[in-house]
Amino acid sequence: MKYRQAVDEIRRELGDEAVSTDPDDLEYHGYSEFSTSNTDERPIAIVRPESTEQVSAIAKICTKYRVPMTPFGSKSSVEGSFSSPFSGICIDMCEMNKIVEFHPQDMDIVVQAGVNWMVLNEEIKDSGLFLPPDPGPTAFIGGMVATNCSGTNAMGYGTMKDYVVNLTVVLADGTIIKTRQRPRKTSAGYNLNSLFTGSEGTLGIITQATLKLAVLPTNLSVATAAFGSIHAAAAAASTMVRSGLPLIALELMDEEQMRSINKNGGTEGRMWDENPTLFLKFSGTVNSVKDSAKEAQAICRKHGSRTFESVSGQKEIDSLWSARKRALFAVFAAKPKDSVFWATDVAVPISRMADLIEESRARAAGYGIWNGVIGHAGDGNFHQALFYHPDKAGDKEKVKDCVDTMIERAVEMEGTVTGEHGIGIGKKECLVKELGLPTVGVMKALKDTLDPHWLLNPGKVFDE
Amino acid sequence: MKYRQAVDEIRRELGDEAVSTDPDDLEYHGYSEFSTSNTDERPIAIVRPESTEQVSAIAKICTKYRVPMTPFGSKSSVEGSFSSPFSGICIDMCEMNKIVEFHPQDMDIVVQAGVNWMVLNEEIKDSGLFLPPDPGPTAFIGGMVATNCSGTNAMGYGTMKDYVVNLTVVLADGTIIKTRQRPRKTSAGYNLNSLFTGSEGTLGIITQATLKLAVLPTNLSVATAAFGSIHAAAAAASTMVRSGLPLIALELMDEEQMRSINKNGGTEGRMWDENPTLFLKFSGTVNSVKDSAKEAQAICRKHGSRTFESVSGQKEIDSLWSARKRALFAVFAAKPKDSVFWATDVAVPISRMADLIEESRARAAGYGIWNGVIGHAGDGNFHQALFYHPDKAGDKEKVKDCVDTMIERAVEMEGTVTGEHGIGIGKKECLVKELGLPTVGVMKALKDTLDPHWLLNPGKVFDE
Repeated sequence: MKYRQAVDEIRRELGDEAVSTDPDDLEYHGYSEFSTSNTDERPIAIVRPESTEQVSAIAKICTKYRVPMTPFGSKSSVEGSFSSPFSGICIDMCEMNKIVEFHPQDMDIVVQAGVNWMVLNEEIKDSGLFLPPDPGPTAFIGGMVATNCSGTNAMGYGTMKDYVVNLTVVLADGTIIKTRQRPRKTSAGYNLNSLFTGSEGTLGIITQATLKLAVLPTNLSVATAAFGSIHAAAAAASTMVRSGLPLIALELMDEEQMRSINKNGGTEGRMWDENPTLFLKFSGTVNSVKDSAKEAQAICRKHGSRTFESVSGQKEIDSLWSARKRALFAVFAAKPKDSVFWATDVAVPISRMADLIEESRARAAGYGIWNGVIGHAGDGNFHQALFYHPDKAGDKEKVKDCVDTMIERAVEMEGTVTGEHGIGIGKKECLVKELGLPTVGVMKALKDTLDPHWLLNPGKVFDE
Repeated sequence: MKYRQAVDEIRRELGDEAVSTDPDDLEYHGYSEFSTSNTDERPIAIVRPESTEQVSAIAKICTKYRVPMTPFGSKSSVEGSFSSPFSGICIDMCEMNKIVEFHPQDMDIVVQAGVNWMVLNEEIKDSGLFLPPDPGPTAFIGGMVATNCSGTNAMGYGTMKDYVVNLTVVLADGTIIKTRQRPRKTSAGYNLNSLFTGSEGTLGIITQATLKLAVLPTNLSVATAAFGSIHAAAAAASTMVRSGLPLIALELMDEEQMRSINKNGGTEGRMWDENPTLFLKFSGTVNSVKDSAKEAQAICRKHGSRTFESVSGQKEIDSLWSARKRALFAVFAAKPKDSVFWATDVAVPISRMADLIEESRARAAGYGIWNGVIGHAGDGNFHQALFYHPDKAGDKEKVKDCVDTMIERAVEMEGTVTGEHGIGIGKKECLVKELGLPTVGVMKALKDTLDPHWLLNPGKVFDE
């Protein structure tokens, strides 16, 4: 009843065209086949605001009627961050897709939360600047900030939190705050940028952000190296990181991932060595990228690499990197009919990564479960993708055991239960295992302070 | 009375030798001639804990008796962060100076809060790793985290917040929390690292930290270039940043700063061009540092540099960089007898830096006040140092007007009232001017939540 009253009031405030209760629209906003964590509930309405002020108006109404608010970006979360376990209003940011101001001299840009990062980079490419974090291609800035996303560039450029200059945030009660002005560095007051970054919409709704930009590298080189084991590949990766090579990206794909590329026809006709493979990307001067590739080759050889290939022309780079780029699509193409995909990520101290990957692969193999690993090897962060047949008795439980055990082991190794996907719905218990009750207690106290009625994206990160 | 009871109870808990009420000790902990913000109050006792558990015991007692607690590091703050405006207990971290664990493979180190960063870097130098932030040479890790310090290396390596993997923090009520485990990246839960980093001891007492380390550069080159004006130097700096040169440091010293170096006898017999001068530091491969220096020279020439000198041997680097390194000492050596030093820092978008420096210099010159500027030009962050004679009528007021106006203008230019020093006592009103009441209100709400009796470093950042 009160939910309906809230929807009516939002309709009066924002206009009919901003509010949808179309069943397909509700379904679209409540479920994703790419997500490991779906719920049965759906939002009662989808609202598409066009400004921070409209988001504020929505928040005021939702707080008045005590209706949950779930911010919604491009739906690329795999942990259910956008779903509506307590129903309520889904706030779809797709209309807030404007680049507000671009300051090439200051190397920053002001954008609304619904801007897609690939569109942004395309728009500004002539300036020689770009936003480095490279998550799923559909992701919106708001969601990228909300989950502190990263991607392959995190090795060289850091994660999303490193690119937030300021945020405009609507609090639960509709108050609008701007966390900072536009300095590239500051020691003034508490770091609200970082508090909202990674809070998954549970502390406030991010409506606008000023983002740092980096200089597009003018010279790149890319290399691949195949190894006889994950351990050998990881050891080579670790040595490269310690050597100070100017790596932008340092990715690891296991033999199953490589096999799925080949099963999918290879890349541009090329078939790949089906062994654990490192993908390296360097930037620098014309001379230094060559020097770096040479040094990388020497390190890989020392660690017993079977192959080493390096290229520096843009076309050759795109071709060699395409295997890494197509990894997820290849896995989906190899997906057995009617099977369900479960992808998760953990991050551990670098010295423990190879052990955890080997363990996790062996456990799944013991169950006869198909699984593949892609790692952001420079950060100790990796993804294990698994498939199960929902109709096959015990299959899902086996996969769940694989995931749970990997997460528990990551915690034992002083790691984290998620390196870049976020907690969402599925990893709430894991968060407590990782950090303990006193630390999670502090987080909940902050939540209580900023969202006393727990209306902002409830059911995510932790429960009341 | 209750203060005395608290001291007695701490004495019983930690032992007599951990507690000092020696008047000289109290004075030492309550005043600094390098600080722009001193108060008349002194702590009632100095406590020197040896462990996180002892800090927790102190916090429990202070909360029980409602006694203020002021964490104290190496006293290098220039904004009075360590002073005790409400008296109470000063918690001196000097005995917590142990390196707890060093993980060279994971490129991190676990240290207590009282470790000095230069000692740390000396201890681990054989590993080829180092902690990049380079504030005042005496600074302790705890204070560096508490103020989100930086220094000349921030251009290439970022600020202290970028090096915090986890923190052990004692809350006001004595609860001990650890913010994270040891992953290099994470998206699990709220970013408590960044909340405590830069909070100046007002949200919790940092007792231990795990810090990321970087690879010591093997090849460096250093260059200096003198220009006819601040604007020309700043324009060259901006072009270099935009060109993507692998700059570790990009420093600016104005003509007054250069003059003070010469007045102080120059560096190793060398006298300097008394014009605005850029100091550049590059790292990379043997070839790339040469390439970078060449490119930098071309850019400086294009912007009308009068001189350009670049070197790459370690001895030559130390010699050329020494002018930058000795800047503060040179200024102090040039300090008129009985005058008082006032140094402050602001940061603005890079495109506005030259304007603000010129304005600020002109205002001080108009008053006949000696002043010099050192800038971290790559970050838009700079320091203006001014001297006044406390006995000369109106002199301090003139300096105060210079500082206040510079800060106001920085805010108008979308900058921050402090890029690396912190708010401390002196800039509380500025923080509100910079961020506005709603944003500062959120910060205060967080303070209320974590420190409901405002016992942790009260009187800093903002007032109740």
